[in-house]
Amino acid sequence: MAEKYINLNTMMNPKSVAIIGASQNTDKVGHIIMQNYINVGYSGTLYPVNINASEEILGRKAYKSVLDIKKSIDLAVIAIPAKLVPAALEECGKAKVRSVIVVSGGFAEVGEVELEKQVTEIAKKYSMPLLGPNCLGVMDLISRIDTMFLPMYKFDKPLIGGVSFASQSGAVGSAVLDLISHENFGLAKFISYGNAIAIDEVDILNYLGHDPDTKVIIFYMEGVKRGKEFIKVAQEVTKLKPVIIIKGGITPAGSKAAHSHTASLAGSYAAYEAVFEQFGFVQAKSIDELLYYAKIFEAQPLTTKKRVAIITNGGGVGVLAADSLYINGLEMAELSDESKAALRKVMPPIVNITMPMDMAGDADDKRFGAAIDIISKDPNVDALMIISLFQTPGADSRVAATIIKYGAESPKPMIVVSPGGDYAEVHNKMMESSGVPVYPSPEDASKALAALIKYASYKSRFGSSNAKNKNNKENH
Amino acid sequence: MAEKYINLNTMMNPKSVAIIGASQNTDKVGHIIMQNYINVGYSGTLYPVNINASEEILGRKAYKSVLDIKKSIDLAVIAIPAKLVPAALEECGKAKVRSVIVVSGGFAEVGEVELEKQVTEIAKKYSMPLLGPNCLGVMDLISRIDTMFLPMYKFDKPLIGGVSFASQSGAVGSAVLDLISHENFGLAKFISYGNAIAIDEVDILNYLGHDPDTKVIIFYMEGVKRGKEFIKVAQEVTKLKPVIIIKGGITPAGSKAAHSHTASLAGSYAAYEAVFEQFGFVQAKSIDELLYYAKIFEAQPLTTKKRVAIITNGGGVGVLAADSLYINGLEMAELSDESKAALRKVMPPIVNITMPMDMAGDADDKRFGAAIDIISKDPNVDALMIISLFQTPGADSRVAATIIKYGAESPKPMIVVSPGGDYAEVHNKMMESSGVPVYPSPEDASKALAALIKYASYKSRFGSSNAKNKNNKENH
Repeated sequence: MAEKYINLNTMMNPKSVAIIGASQNTDKVGHIIMQNYINVGYSGTLYPVNINASEEILGRKAYKSVLDIKKSIDLAVIAIPAKLVPAALEECGKAKVRSVIVVSGGFAEVGEVELEKQVTEIAKKYSMPLLGPNCLGVMDLISRIDTMFLPMYKFDKPLIGGVSFASQSGAVGSAVLDLISHENFGLAKFISYGNAIAIDEVDILNYLGHDPDTKVIIFYMEGVKRGKEFIKVAQEVTKLKPVIIIKGGITPAGSKAAHSHTASLAGSYAAYEAVFEQFGFVQAKSIDELLYYAKIFEAQPLTTKKRVAIITNGGGVGVLAADSLYINGLEMAELSDESKAALRKVMPPIVNITMPMDMAGDADDKRFGAAIDIISKDPNVDALMIISLFQTPGADSRVAATIIKYGAESPKPMIVVSPGGDYAEVHNKMMESSGVPVYPSPEDASKALAALIKYASYKSRFGSSNAKNKNNKENH
Repeated sequence: MAEKYINLNTMMNPKSVAIIGASQNTDKVGHIIMQNYINVGYSGTLYPVNINASEEILGRKAYKSVLDIKKSIDLAVIAIPAKLVPAALEECGKAKVRSVIVVSGGFAEVGEVELEKQVTEIAKKYSMPLLGPNCLGVMDLISRIDTMFLPMYKFDKPLIGGVSFASQSGAVGSAVLDLISHENFGLAKFISYGNAIAIDEVDILNYLGHDPDTKVIIFYMEGVKRGKEFIKVAQEVTKLKPVIIIKGGITPAGSKAAHSHTASLAGSYAAYEAVFEQFGFVQAKSIDELLYYAKIFEAQPLTTKKRVAIITNGGGVGVLAADSLYINGLEMAELSDESKAALRKVMPPIVNITMPMDMAGDADDKRFGAAIDIISKDPNVDALMIISLFQTPGADSRVAATIIKYGAESPKPMIVVSPGGDYAEVHNKMMESSGVPVYPSPEDASKALAALIKYASYKSRFGSSNAKNKNNKENH
């Protein structure tokens, strides 16, 4: 190809899709993919392709080969046994298919290096953008495409939102996708890229970096094939939007596992870490951190300053929150005298006007509202951590609604700590789906705030002047 | 009192309880406490006491004072405004009440130091074991007592099990209690001790340390009043059972917050940390860790050896798991040649017989069962981490049932990693309530295993010879 980076536009927004391996047999991957396209309301044309095809598959005219279709095909999804892939791909090339996703596994990751080479050569010969093999393909909640072949009852569909997620591993991909809906933040695009024989980390980072629907990128990778190009693209992209990265194979044990998994060389972590740090990546050390960081970046504005106000309806959790701020290099805000005087007027006498401010277990929506209203306007406060323990007598849905009122469009980052069971979870979902991130513990919340502030500082030093990155979550 | 440590037996297993402040008014704390006693099926005698009492409260004959009851009273729960507490307590002393819980707040924590002193003196004068003030009191799932005044619809009741939880803070107490049920492990006793003017950390640690229903202790504390006694009791107790501790106020910011909260002096963390380390405490750095550690200690046996086998149905999560073992100082197990040969016979050819063993996304209960059966018997394996991604086509309830079959009574620690949404959560609950701890990420699982092994080593050096600590969870 002439371009430096493979363009994923056609693949992510195809007007016509051929599904090679489509089947009436509900056990077949090709059946599930075809059914998923129908289920998500894909508006383009679907062409089921199966060498044994009879007249129709799932109500669409079926073809024995893509060569029989005789229409322009934007994307072919190949879901057939590995050894049949080269022939099918050859036909895609001849039919001038504009992009291909090979979901089939059974290539280099199981030692079939020659077969993988063959597939690579065919894609190159026809200059076809190819994703995979050994991947889950893509999901785009906006253009309504879904090549995943997983039983949909097994996982919750995420909200539409601003986070795009690229994963080398299909397993990490599907688990994290499921967690994204569980954590109630919104997804734009998902790309599982597997063995990356054509489209790789560099192409994907470049594509998502310039995708207007993507506000935040999360990335699971085990290795980078084109190091220099990756750094070049990263330098550009991390100045535009946060890129949260989790790297598999950062230790000798993990690196060995990665090699036998996607045949990728994980490389020395020290080298990766230095690069990630230098080029403004947000580094997640665990799946938990990956989600907690994505959540705050998607929903809340950036700030480079680190004076955090803590408002709580339980003293002990406030103490743990104060500790966690300190441990994560943040500062406790000192309220202005004006704020103190205003709070003294509205808080009951038992409330100590200090930080963290413990409003006591009977704090209701009015007390929460008054506190947030005054404290969020204080020029000495850069960010707010609101601890809302829903086990207390005063906390109920009105408290959640009040937090949403201030937190969903806050000019300063505002996050909530709400540990608990079913009653708390109902309210956490309420807040999160309205753009207020909720954390199970103050420690997690402080880590997320620290990551946001660190990235904001990087961006303000090197990035564009637009320091605001607001929530564009929609519920569909 | 003559004894060095205050005995909590009568308080935790009272045959008769007077509730001072009991009321027909459903808004009153005394009403909620009385109602909770009735709801949990308390089998002893209840005496509602209210200075304005008419004939009956909640169907029980009411009294204007404990002095009017004229029967032996094992426990009085005092839930009236702070300024009325001294008089009520004086009456308890005269009525020879055998123990007292003061749930009322409004003492030293809000600057009422004199009032608190008065209460302390009265308890001393009559040698009455007193818990509180400014606390939630106690909950004992076995003797069916519950002095908590929280709206019960707001939180899930834990299963009955082997973990007892002591918390200085009521807020941390109620949030963690709620999380315990959410995390599906079993509780024995809960003690919220607030301002600790009589019964303190030392008494509670001593009591729970020798309580036969308590297999694991978790402790939230901000400060210790009697340092030397605490160490003395700890030395004895940590050799008997794991004591997981989370300390509030470990930083200057947190310490300041703790002081204004329960008026306790948090002290230097370096000093505490050294003591905790030396005397075999399991230290949790966050609420998440507290729960994840409690879970593994309650359900799984100890081991001092650290060769961990990883079995997974998704390669990428296996890579992250391998990394996390290494980071937490654990080792990847090397399977014996016998195990390898046996696995080669039962696994499909695409499965690489190595560690971590990736059984692929179509692994079903048979494949999981065969792998666990062989690997758990391997003398080169000390513990098992099973990654079960329920988003995959092969994983369903039969996989969970198979894991339970091996994991609930395993002679080696066996834990599960299962990240995900509703479908995964249903199966996680299934496994956890049967004694197999489940973690949302491999990082959390490795931390928990590392904590277990570290404690086991301490215990084997200093403790009793009984290194097995099996699950005694019951469902009631």
